[in-house]
Amino acid sequence: MNRGNVSERRHEPPQVGVTSVILALEPAREHGRRRLWLPLVRRVREPFLGQWALPGGPLRADRSLEQSAYETLASTTDLRPRYLEQLYTFGDPARSHGGVPMVSVCYWALVGQADVAQLEPRHNVQWFADDDLPPLAFDHRAIVDYALWRLRHRMDSPRVVRQLVGEPFTLRQLHALTEAIRGERVDVANYRRRMLASGLLEETGGVLREGRQRPAALYRFRPGAMDDAGAPWLPAGCEGEQLEHMSTAPERACADDNPLGSLTTALLHD
Amino acid sequence: MNRGNVSERRHEPPQVGVTSVILALEPAREHGRRRLWLPLVRRVREPFLGQWALPGGPLRADRSLEQSAYETLASTTDLRPRYLEQLYTFGDPARSHGGVPMVSVCYWALVGQADVAQLEPRHNVQWFADDDLPPLAFDHRAIVDYALWRLRHRMDSPRVVRQLVGEPFTLRQLHALTEAIRGERVDVANYRRRMLASGLLEETGGVLREGRQRPAALYRFRPGAMDDAGAPWLPAGCEGEQLEHMSTAPERACADDNPLGSLTTALLHD
Repeated sequence: MNRGNVSERRHEPPQVGVTSVILALEPAREHGRRRLWLPLVRRVREPFLGQWALPGGPLRADRSLEQSAYETLASTTDLRPRYLEQLYTFGDPARSHGGVPMVSVCYWALVGQADVAQLEPRHNVQWFADDDLPPLAFDHRAIVDYALWRLRHRMDSPRVVRQLVGEPFTLRQLHALTEAIRGERVDVANYRRRMLASGLLEETGGVLREGRQRPAALYRFRPGAMDDAGAPWLPAGCEGEQLEHMSTAPERACADDNPLGSLTTALLHD
Repeated sequence: MNRGNVSERRHEPPQVGVTSVILALEPAREHGRRRLWLPLVRRVREPFLGQWALPGGPLRADRSLEQSAYETLASTTDLRPRYLEQLYTFGDPARSHGGVPMVSVCYWALVGQADVAQLEPRHNVQWFADDDLPPLAFDHRAIVDYALWRLRHRMDSPRVVRQLVGEPFTLRQLHALTEAIRGERVDVANYRRRMLASGLLEETGGVLREGRQRPAALYRFRPGAMDDAGAPWLPAGCEGEQLEHMSTAPERACADDNPLGSLTTALLHD
């Protein structure tokens, strides 16, 4: 379809696209903390030809937003995300950069480690660590930052942990996830002590043997752990005020730290 | 523009609209608790001709989503909302009911009491109490329910209170707001005692004289009250587990009580 020139396109009704941030825990490395990982797709047309972008595509009239998000995941990664949630809708006219004005309904998805381990390389798709992303097309960097921010404010949810590391898990796996989400080192001895004292985990009786390390006990969340408001277990090492802020006041954190700032909460007059 | 018949329309690319839930505290009545109020617009075309609907309209290519939301507010109510936030984007193909497939980016806005007091009746626009809504067009009832749910999970935010009742405020005003948001009676003596003991308010030194009642002391939030994680002040009367749930665990509440259920958090495989 011929879309006319830039000036004509600017007056067409906005199109709707669905864009997804797919997050996983980076596979284990020998050294260094593990990071969060996400797949990017190399663009095959203008604008931003050849640049990396989030997977996505136009919304078809016969698809729901969720179906459409799910289909872009399937076509990009072969993965079966266990968690899919609407993130935010971006729609500034300037974001199309001369293309047809596009409103992007963004989703974030979490995929488990077992799935990531089976990843096959795909044409034009590559995974990148969250702290080592290439320049992204459009406003996709802002979308990634917002998804990571959302994840950091959900790290006290057993639901999120279950999707990213699976259950049962070892304390080492939980510790690696905590470091990945927080993006920094967390003292492992303190972390273990704190987790075991939290009362939120129970041993399954099983063990996991990984490489040459001695077998590690497997844990799961105690029934009811999801309803616990204190959630001292994941942000271990994140002391005092910061811990309270993160684990008990996500709504307030939204207003204060939200990288979208005035986009999500616009105080128009004051 | 001729949109063809229903079957043809079903295959057109989805259009984007912006829909707003505008919430205010109902003006004071002699008796009975105050309620939340929202404006509805009577539809002047099919589908749902003559039925009440949320204010909104198509997104123009040269407008941002926020600008568009703000314009629908201005054209509907003359009000200047102080708080505007993206709520959710609805996009199921079935929601258009034979019209052009429509993706609605929904906003919620809060308007203050002073503004509501100056409301002029407008053609085809009427305000309704949240517990006495008429049947709504499309899926607008679900959108209203979701906005009210979001507000209930934000009722511990001084930001929300400032928008709805203004600052300074009397304890009577704060109590009325709490009842309106919770949708039920809250014992006023307990509420006053609890608020005064919370340490989150400070007297301004001023008083407010309303009608024949004796002058009431005016309060404002102590600096720093916004950062307080406990927020015991608004859900007063909402005891024990429920209080903790509401004031400290909105994220988890999202997963459990969210009226959108599987829409916002879809666990696709488990």
